[in-house]
Amino acid sequence: MSVISVKTPRQYDITIENGILNNCGRIIADTVKGKNCVIVTDSNVAPLYLATVKKSLESYGITVSTHIFPAGEENKTLQTVEQMLHSFCEAGLTRSDFTVALGGGVCGDMTGFASAIYMRGIAYIGIPTTLLAQIDSSVGGKTGCDLSFGKNLVGSFHAPKAVIIDPLCLNTLPQRIFNDGLGEAIKYGVIKSEKLFDRLMNENAKDFINELIEECVSIKRDVTENDFFEKGERMLLNYGHTIGHAIEKYYNYKDITHGEAICIGMVTMAAAAERNGLCEIGLAKKLTACLHKYALPATTAIELSKLCEGALNDKKRRGKDIKIVLPEKIGTCVIKTVPTDTLAQYLGGDGE
Amino acid sequence: MSVISVKTPRQYDITIENGILNNCGRIIADTVKGKNCVIVTDSNVAPLYLATVKKSLESYGITVSTHIFPAGEENKTLQTVEQMLHSFCEAGLTRSDFTVALGGGVCGDMTGFASAIYMRGIAYIGIPTTLLAQIDSSVGGKTGCDLSFGKNLVGSFHAPKAVIIDPLCLNTLPQRIFNDGLGEAIKYGVIKSEKLFDRLMNENAKDFINELIEECVSIKRDVTENDFFEKGERMLLNYGHTIGHAIEKYYNYKDITHGEAICIGMVTMAAAAERNGLCEIGLAKKLTACLHKYALPATTAIELSKLCEGALNDKKRRGKDIKIVLPEKIGTCVIKTVPTDTLAQYLGGDGE
Repeated sequence: MSVISVKTPRQYDITIENGILNNCGRIIADTVKGKNCVIVTDSNVAPLYLATVKKSLESYGITVSTHIFPAGEENKTLQTVEQMLHSFCEAGLTRSDFTVALGGGVCGDMTGFASAIYMRGIAYIGIPTTLLAQIDSSVGGKTGCDLSFGKNLVGSFHAPKAVIIDPLCLNTLPQRIFNDGLGEAIKYGVIKSEKLFDRLMNENAKDFINELIEECVSIKRDVTENDFFEKGERMLLNYGHTIGHAIEKYYNYKDITHGEAICIGMVTMAAAAERNGLCEIGLAKKLTACLHKYALPATTAIELSKLCEGALNDKKRRGKDIKIVLPEKIGTCVIKTVPTDTLAQYLGGDGE
Repeated sequence: MSVISVKTPRQYDITIENGILNNCGRIIADTVKGKNCVIVTDSNVAPLYLATVKKSLESYGITVSTHIFPAGEENKTLQTVEQMLHSFCEAGLTRSDFTVALGGGVCGDMTGFASAIYMRGIAYIGIPTTLLAQIDSSVGGKTGCDLSFGKNLVGSFHAPKAVIIDPLCLNTLPQRIFNDGLGEAIKYGVIKSEKLFDRLMNENAKDFINELIEECVSIKRDVTENDFFEKGERMLLNYGHTIGHAIEKYYNYKDITHGEAICIGMVTMAAAAERNGLCEIGLAKKLTACLHKYALPATTAIELSKLCEGALNDKKRRGKDIKIVLPEKIGTCVIKTVPTDTLAQYLGGDGE
């Protein structure tokens, strides 16, 4: 068992252990005072793990209600959040009670958000069941949902009381969704850990998955602790995301996963860094090889100018410049400010 | 002009001045960096003050969009909040832009909440136009909306960047709505200021309305600064609210205003305090006289047992006890914990 302590405004532990789902009630009962909870999960995860988690909680004397919403990013809406809130009311949750988010990133983001705003904030426990959620969205305290105008436009910073990660859950993940998470793991390697990148390159990720989760969670913990409200270093976590988000948007969030899209974004940035003399020659090739090893894409047929346009239309962007994350070498990235009107040129060079 | 500084987690100033609406752009331009905003107001307030505020902001080079929602507590819903969020998107608000809440408590609560969750929090400016909003809901950082299960069940703590109070706005308020606010002003007197209570008793509130606003805002500022997350002293502000909320609920939030309902709640608590030997004899009578002076009610035909039942069904209540606020004398109140099963007896005495 590994326990990683996070000291963002609200301190909490992330516990990683094979089979811990069967005994998650112990950790939860030790962490929260409330004796009444709602487990929120989606229609994919409910048949797999809901009964196990419910049983464990009940064995510690906790009253459990459940809320199951239809799986899929298209349901990451305020309407779904409102339905969760209604379930909290029906279950009679008070300010001292809590919720459990059992599922992937969509479930965690929305359950965290519903918990952040229910009675102006109640406790929630994260039990992420996808690799992406385990290494990414369960750390950092960002919660929220989409609006019809764009992704994650609504939300709160609201850290969980505890995160419980059972790597055995990954055994039920479709291969493509598992690889989707590996895209983010490779990102952690490029921005912060050459050692992690080398292991992903030379070994099979599944053979050291527990250490991989622990390493990724530790990196994200360190970065977000230093910069909880995303003013500086936390931006490094966006490596590959500027172009990645534009690709996801281009495909209307279908046909390509988040991890796949940021893989292409990472290679685009690596190639730009090479061309502009910021990083060692060969990095983009090395990164591409690692991605291909896990059946992840490195290129797209969409024109770069279109992607830059999409990136610049991002509603969250401020002013006349855009900050992009570029690798210097594997394990070290920097943030560079580029005027928006030269972005396509900077990323594409003269040849495009 | 009076300026009251509030030092809740985010520091801000409350400026009180006759006619300041005409020049609110100056204060706002001095306070926020963003140059793009959405003014949110309701269908009652828009024809009265929207043009004035918009013009003043534009004269300081700020781009102004507007969002008008239908007036009324029945519209204090997540759907209305979502429509505001859509307007923020349409106006292209970024994280550095801001909103303006121009109106009563419903407008302030919802606009503050929409601002708290839009992109995980942007700045907002409060311009309260009712007496109740000026002295109560514009201070303290509570934002939110209702669910079908109950009032204010969803929300965030999110303080404004500035609050601008123009007492001349009160001239367009219907008398009953003005008096509704005086109910809260009398509450401040009973819990914290004998001097304020005596002035309300001996003078006409309209004759010292600017000082009244200043005094009430200062009291609420002091109490909330000491206890932003409502763990202790802030509970004093709930004087009259335990029973008051039950009365509002009984009437389904129609036919009686919030201020009227808490007046009855205050008298109920004062009478109970007298009966139980906690406060000087005659306080309830004195309070009743002050309320009647401003055409505010002191009693209700609803049975006390029914009101206690309503109060105890409040979803926010914790455990087997209930905390109630009781006066010791005018200007001093205490918090008392009463077992829920003896509440009706405690409040009603043997005679009821």
